[in-house]
Amino acid sequence: MEYTQNALAEVIRQIPSPDKEIMDEIYRQWDKKAKPLGSLGRLEDIVAALGGIYGTVHPSTGKKGVIVMAADNGVVAEGVAQSDYHVTTQVTCNMTCQDATVSILAHMNGAQVFPVDIGMYEDVTCPGIIDRKIRHGTANMAKEPAMTREETLAAICTGIEIVAELKEKGFCFFATGEMGIGNTTTSSAVASVLLDCPPETVTGRGAGLSSEGLSKKIRTIKNAIHDRKPDPKDIVDVLGKVGGLDIAGLAGCFIGAARWRVPIVIDGFISSVAALAAVRLAPTCRPYIFPSHCSAEPAGKMVLEALGMEPYIYAGMYLGEGTGAVMAFHLFDTALEAYNKIPEFEDVHIEAYEHLK
Amino acid sequence: MEYTQNALAEVIRQIPSPDKEIMDEIYRQWDKKAKPLGSLGRLEDIVAALGGIYGTVHPSTGKKGVIVMAADNGVVAEGVAQSDYHVTTQVTCNMTCQDATVSILAHMNGAQVFPVDIGMYEDVTCPGIIDRKIRHGTANMAKEPAMTREETLAAICTGIEIVAELKEKGFCFFATGEMGIGNTTTSSAVASVLLDCPPETVTGRGAGLSSEGLSKKIRTIKNAIHDRKPDPKDIVDVLGKVGGLDIAGLAGCFIGAARWRVPIVIDGFISSVAALAAVRLAPTCRPYIFPSHCSAEPAGKMVLEALGMEPYIYAGMYLGEGTGAVMAFHLFDTALEAYNKIPEFEDVHIEAYEHLK
Repeated sequence: MEYTQNALAEVIRQIPSPDKEIMDEIYRQWDKKAKPLGSLGRLEDIVAALGGIYGTVHPSTGKKGVIVMAADNGVVAEGVAQSDYHVTTQVTCNMTCQDATVSILAHMNGAQVFPVDIGMYEDVTCPGIIDRKIRHGTANMAKEPAMTREETLAAICTGIEIVAELKEKGFCFFATGEMGIGNTTTSSAVASVLLDCPPETVTGRGAGLSSEGLSKKIRTIKNAIHDRKPDPKDIVDVLGKVGGLDIAGLAGCFIGAARWRVPIVIDGFISSVAALAAVRLAPTCRPYIFPSHCSAEPAGKMVLEALGMEPYIYAGMYLGEGTGAVMAFHLFDTALEAYNKIPEFEDVHIEAYEHLK
Repeated sequence: MEYTQNALAEVIRQIPSPDKEIMDEIYRQWDKKAKPLGSLGRLEDIVAALGGIYGTVHPSTGKKGVIVMAADNGVVAEGVAQSDYHVTTQVTCNMTCQDATVSILAHMNGAQVFPVDIGMYEDVTCPGIIDRKIRHGTANMAKEPAMTREETLAAICTGIEIVAELKEKGFCFFATGEMGIGNTTTSSAVASVLLDCPPETVTGRGAGLSSEGLSKKIRTIKNAIHDRKPDPKDIVDVLGKVGGLDIAGLAGCFIGAARWRVPIVIDGFISSVAALAAVRLAPTCRPYIFPSHCSAEPAGKMVLEALGMEPYIYAGMYLGEGTGAVMAFHLFDTALEAYNKIPEFEDVHIEAYEHLK
């Protein structure tokens, strides 16, 4: 696809609606299962939603992929993180050899990790990293816009393309993840603008800042928003001026998943900010997006609330990489296993329950 | 063991403390892992807790069992449930042939289900059900105490013995479950007494009562507590007068797990009420007990809060049987997998993070 506003608008226009009739039929199927009506709660909703997305009353997650957008952030020069771009490089490379946490959990849950270099500072030759570099890290948003509008659109469109390419290869259930030192700073900046909240309420310690570091991070975000003046109504402008290539790329993944009719799971704070940006850009992509866990970053829950989503898992995690999303795959598998295997009332000689008021 | 107050007191006296030094060592091990410090949140706590219980810095869950206490409740005669003892029988039998929901989810999570007839109304010859029947269902608590003090002690001690027997067979990680029509009524009655809360705030629709049925259920509980006068300071008295054989049996399982040094996971509302009763009887069993999900029954969360526990999973489930506990096994497996497989900083050429204030 072309990396333009028009091409993006065309993709968004083509997002289909989930099949409502199939969803209703799946709820009717659930009511025949030998268990109290509705007693599997949100697991029943998950299966209905998956059926509506895939267009079948017999949904299955099939091959699962974790798309990890890796990028560096110029704002790290302001001292807002404990590490630098070397760690982005190293951890992203570790994802290709089962050494990163997300690879370990993905393996455990039958999923494959696809790290995408959408803007790492260093050039890496590590096989297994998908090279879609747009630039060598963003500029320092404290001094200038993190990237141009063209670069931002390119990152979003790249996310859309990655989903299309993986779907071509048979992957039809996705988790989102990221790796990029400094990306809780950019995420907090984007969240501050999109939620219309002061930076101090949406900014946390990331990978472990000191109190002094946290103050500096908040001050940096405040100044960047003041100086760059992102337009809250223009999501591409916000992502470009105070966001990052990883966030923009993930926003594209959410839109791409909707366009190509596959479910996609939010991970933690950064991923949720990307999902919020995607839904603001394309409200019709909302039904394709699922929450997973509640990040320990202070704004994690706020962003999910803005999306109207409630996390399934509260484990106090803030590791990123897609670890929480891939862990939640088990809930989706459980929902499908229950739907496929619980016998119907008549098969097990139990009188069906009735819906009562 | 003898089924007496003295024998129970002796078991409680023998509950060991988890090994605090091993727990500290496990936290030190976590800090060497190549990821932000503490970023796996409660998963790190889980591994430390398991290590402290098993007495090793290399904990593993080993063979997993789901203990399902099955019993009938005389109070069903008051019309507080949509079904009757036939369903208790049928679903418990279904657990032995992979037809019950808990069996399906246990199989998926590598666990074995052990249904225990601790007081079903009917005599069943279904192989695979452990026969430890204390009586054929309880009496109707609306008219008389549900059971005698001796029967209550027998149920608690039976729970302790079941854990000991399964541990003998190599099981060392447990989920709790129950099956018994009417047991949300008895659980709400016990919760009302133990939490010192009026029945209307701790009583829900169970497997799907109408609003009229719910009013009747609340009225029944209120009258039973008024007429039976359970002594809130005497847990055995409360369980016997307005509880059930399943709740008492599960309370015994929690105490037995602590005594025999194995972790045990709470399921939903009924199981959590049993855990609260156990902790009131034996505060030292608390560190051996883990939460899982938050039941959709209104008092589910209240009981966990009284235990000082926060659920990991919010899936709006209220099926019982142990389904939520066994689903949460995956979180424990994930925690251990991460602990065992994440390489140390020095192995992957990343500078370690520091604890900052």
